[in-house]
Amino acid sequence: MSKAAIMGYGTIGSGVLKVLMMNRELIKRSAGDYIDAKYVLDLKDFPGTPAEKLITHNIDDIVNDPEVDIVVETMGGTNPAYPFVKKCIEAGKSVCTSNKELVEKHGQELLELAKTKNVDFLFEASCGGGIPVIRALNCAYVADEIEEISGILNGTTNFILTKMLKEGAAYADVLREAQDMGIAERNPEADVEGHDPCRKIAILSSVAYGKNVNFESIYTEGITGITPYDMEFAKKRGGAIKLIASFREKEGKYYAMVSPFFVSEDNALCAVNGAYNAIYIKGNAVGSTMLYGSGAGMMETASAVVADVVNAARGTGETKRVVWLPETLKIEGIDEDRRSFMVCVQSDKVAQAKEAFGAAESVELSGGVTGLITKEMSEKDFKAASDKVGIVSRIRVK
Amino acid sequence: MSKAAIMGYGTIGSGVLKVLMMNRELIKRSAGDYIDAKYVLDLKDFPGTPAEKLITHNIDDIVNDPEVDIVVETMGGTNPAYPFVKKCIEAGKSVCTSNKELVEKHGQELLELAKTKNVDFLFEASCGGGIPVIRALNCAYVADEIEEISGILNGTTNFILTKMLKEGAAYADVLREAQDMGIAERNPEADVEGHDPCRKIAILSSVAYGKNVNFESIYTEGITGITPYDMEFAKKRGGAIKLIASFREKEGKYYAMVSPFFVSEDNALCAVNGAYNAIYIKGNAVGSTMLYGSGAGMMETASAVVADVVNAARGTGETKRVVWLPETLKIEGIDEDRRSFMVCVQSDKVAQAKEAFGAAESVELSGGVTGLITKEMSEKDFKAASDKVGIVSRIRVK
Repeated sequence: MSKAAIMGYGTIGSGVLKVLMMNRELIKRSAGDYIDAKYVLDLKDFPGTPAEKLITHNIDDIVNDPEVDIVVETMGGTNPAYPFVKKCIEAGKSVCTSNKELVEKHGQELLELAKTKNVDFLFEASCGGGIPVIRALNCAYVADEIEEISGILNGTTNFILTKMLKEGAAYADVLREAQDMGIAERNPEADVEGHDPCRKIAILSSVAYGKNVNFESIYTEGITGITPYDMEFAKKRGGAIKLIASFREKEGKYYAMVSPFFVSEDNALCAVNGAYNAIYIKGNAVGSTMLYGSGAGMMETASAVVADVVNAARGTGETKRVVWLPETLKIEGIDEDRRSFMVCVQSDKVAQAKEAFGAAESVELSGGVTGLITKEMSEKDFKAASDKVGIVSRIRVK
Repeated sequence: MSKAAIMGYGTIGSGVLKVLMMNRELIKRSAGDYIDAKYVLDLKDFPGTPAEKLITHNIDDIVNDPEVDIVVETMGGTNPAYPFVKKCIEAGKSVCTSNKELVEKHGQELLELAKTKNVDFLFEASCGGGIPVIRALNCAYVADEIEEISGILNGTTNFILTKMLKEGAAYADVLREAQDMGIAERNPEADVEGHDPCRKIAILSSVAYGKNVNFESIYTEGITGITPYDMEFAKKRGGAIKLIASFREKEGKYYAMVSPFFVSEDNALCAVNGAYNAIYIKGNAVGSTMLYGSGAGMMETASAVVADVVNAARGTGETKRVVWLPETLKIEGIDEDRRSFMVCVQSDKVAQAKEAFGAAESVELSGGVTGLITKEMSEKDFKAASDKVGIVSRIRVK
């Protein structure tokens, strides 16, 4: 029988306790024995909740209890999450976390530490909520060279973009609505500027390629600059604009980017709407695959955390098999990255734009603006041409 | 270092050898050591192929070679696949198979045998080709009560249905085209009558619920009865018709069916086109998730087989954790199963049909036929009403 401790009784932490209790018998069948929570570490007391009798304010209660073999970390941030997690692993306890900041910053080190202590450090819930993408990379796509990971990894922005496209609503209005619904935070920067999906793609590519991918080295652009013209153009072309976090390998070089992209209807990511997430993974044998599900939410994320807890209890040694070396993977600059762009220009500049961008056709949009699709060109050449012509907006084409 | 043997050098077997060779270094990183094929068992000799020097015609060469610790079975059928696999497991070798017939018929017994021999019996490639759905059920969704598994599990029929919908083509014409392209077999019965997806959903539900699901006990209907009116109606309603293999749990009772279903545009399965497969899995914590990818194809399926080989070489003990008891899961009859139906009737019967089916609206289709959506009703009541009215065709609504 395993005893677990939960550090942080917020949305996800309370979800973890709920799943442990609700699916107790099933978890016994999966894990081979019951797994019960013995402690909940939090600053508050939560009277009247299922955590009431489990609350402790002292991390040492957990660290020094030999009965606790699995610790769940759902505090978020790195302080005190990082020292607490380290202490637990050093005390010989497996740790399962949903904390992307912790994993992005200290994942490599904590993984190594767990290996030396012969325990698990698992983090399925740090990327894509309930979608088992980390486990897919570690256990399923193990016979494939991964050529690309491209994901809709942020539910808040996908909710906003879906509403903007379907209802023709303006960004600021939809953001306000999402904030009122609790889907977007009052300070939405981490989501709308793309920092959240950037951390997630850094974790996924670190796992897929076995080396540290520094999230600061990934070019990141959020959704705040998307214009109604872009949306109108995307709709007329039969597709959608999605915030995509992407990592690609080509001839031994690595390319990464977080940016809004136009995806056409025949791309599986196009149909991923609302707060859902999806991760497209391309391997050199398995070809194109996609994992889809809820990228956030209390129970969905808790499901992934508790799956980690079950695997830790099973003693499957998953952590031992994860290769994540301390060396840093070099990411190429984006200047030479080649693609087409969806460009909006004032209609009196169409001829000049067609020339500069090698565009064959144009589509008239509202408000005296015209949309063009450029030929495939490098980011550098595109920027030079845009500066020369003077454009209204542009979206990269996937 | 592991040595593997491949039994059956057809499309998938040759793909397995190709992946082992092409991704040899990566597989070493994943598995901890090189995995090389030492034998290929086949009746033929395959001169001039990579298998040439590995060919044996005698199963005992494999069984009696202590250096071979992993055997791949890609022969198909159950004879001689079943006795050969049994022999290999009895000799203490792990077996990885892509053979759905073998797994559906003998999976439970072979799994038990592998457990007693402390080796693996893995069958990721038997359902959904390169999609890691078995591993997801065994390793990822382990904290969830699975409420539903519904999949597009047959690429041939999905290719046909996609073409019928998009091009308005007739079933017989598209089937012929698919046969000419090698996507459908000359004898297409197993695909178009739904037997292939039926075996796959039987395997998936056996794994998910831990008991034998007998594929003969699943109500199965193929795609041969779909009319152009059904397709026209589906298109007008904004959706698609998909052959869906479905297994559901509700209040401790189990329901299963393979049948064409209308899925509306907001259903993620609607966008799964061509030869692709997708499996929707709903858990009581994780909510709605979907796994998508190529359901067939040489390299895609081989990727899944070799992933099993890597996991067998890792010695992760995956087989030990799979619960699949010999007792049979009772599946309810379909009579009391409730849903809406998309019905086509001769236009002079619209009033009578509206009355009989509790349908509010109707849509005029070509050729003097009208489409209706019934109220939610039991299969039994629907059949009685259909017999009374006399209908042209009907499609279940998902």
